[in-house]
Amino acid sequence: MPRKVDHHTRRAAIAESAWRLTSHGGIEAVTMRHVAADAGMSLGQVQHYFTTKDALLTFAYQLLTERITTRTTTTRHPGDEEPEPHDVLRHALVELLPLDEQRTLEAHVTTAYLAHATVTPDMAAQLRKTHTTLENLITHQLRRGQHRGNVPVHLDTTRAARTLLALLDGLTAHVLIGTHTPTDAEHALDTHLDELFTT
Amino acid sequence: MPRKVDHHTRRAAIAESAWRLTSHGGIEAVTMRHVAADAGMSLGQVQHYFTTKDALLTFAYQLLTERITTRTTTTRHPGDEEPEPHDVLRHALVELLPLDEQRTLEAHVTTAYLAHATVTPDMAAQLRKTHTTLENLITHQLRRGQHRGNVPVHLDTTRAARTLLALLDGLTAHVLIGTHTPTDAEHALDTHLDELFTT
Repeated sequence: MPRKVDHHTRRAAIAESAWRLTSHGGIEAVTMRHVAADAGMSLGQVQHYFTTKDALLTFAYQLLTERITTRTTTTRHPGDEEPEPHDVLRHALVELLPLDEQRTLEAHVTTAYLAHATVTPDMAAQLRKTHTTLENLITHQLRRGQHRGNVPVHLDTTRAARTLLALLDGLTAHVLIGTHTPTDAEHALDTHLDELFTT
Repeated sequence: MPRKVDHHTRRAAIAESAWRLTSHGGIEAVTMRHVAADAGMSLGQVQHYFTTKDALLTFAYQLLTERITTRTTTTRHPGDEEPEPHDVLRHALVELLPLDEQRTLEAHVTTAYLAHATVTPDMAAQLRKTHTTLENLITHQLRRGQHRGNVPVHLDTTRAARTLLALLDGLTAHVLIGTHTPTDAEHALDTHLDELFTT
């Protein structure tokens, strides 16, 4: 089905243009006209795939989240069926920090969406879904840590997961504006994880 | 000098209109025309006080920061010349969380500026200045805590201060999108402070 493949590829290419524009100028830099120019398409072609800017922004967000989630949940522990909860968690969470070019582009986009979501209820609902997915990943590993005796049993894993995600979003924005270096941010994440895995 | 007072009052009124527009629609909702309409002035009057949108955004940010800083540094410990570092810090930092209507409006504005600063170098420089001011306030109290034996002496107070500010910005954005309740955010701050004041 070459047409279907083409359809998906084109929508992804348009989303990637939206990411690039967002990373340079924020959400306000994303217009259907600018996206068309960046993607090397006509305005009519972009409008064929996305009837509104909101539909395009939503798809671009979902595709970004999918790609990040795939990375965060892909194990780097081949052959080890019982990897340490601390290592699984750290491996997943460093994927959310702007530590290389790809993650810096993603960080620009997620920070822009975070601010956009504070004034756009539909987008806020999307972000809460992503947060729930990540929260579940984190609480699962913290509970594994509790069972293994690496994390205090009295820790409220849900609250700890939400705090960790807030910290990551704050660190991400602060790296982008230069308050933290990427290395500082990674160190702050490690310090925080060390405080959770204390037993 | 009534003219000078009037000048300052009018600039402040324009900045307050910019905050209101930002809190409802993000930075992209701030146009000279919308600000004029919200402030009940003509476009020409607004342009008399601010020649560009950037000049207006910068002033609005500085005025907001000034007001918040005044609150965070105003002591609520009358008569107590040696208030506990933990209490001084907590009192200052809860002023940055969206726990009532005024602070929620401010949180919308600071979150919008945070995202804006990631793509606007001049604004990033402004935010880094604010972060340095807050960082100094936090490190001062953490060092007082170290002298009094409430904070571990090996703690890197500068790193701890930066991490705390990142956490606060993340929590703020997450309250606005509904991942955290305001009470959750306050609890997360308290948990984090308890981990710093451990000795």
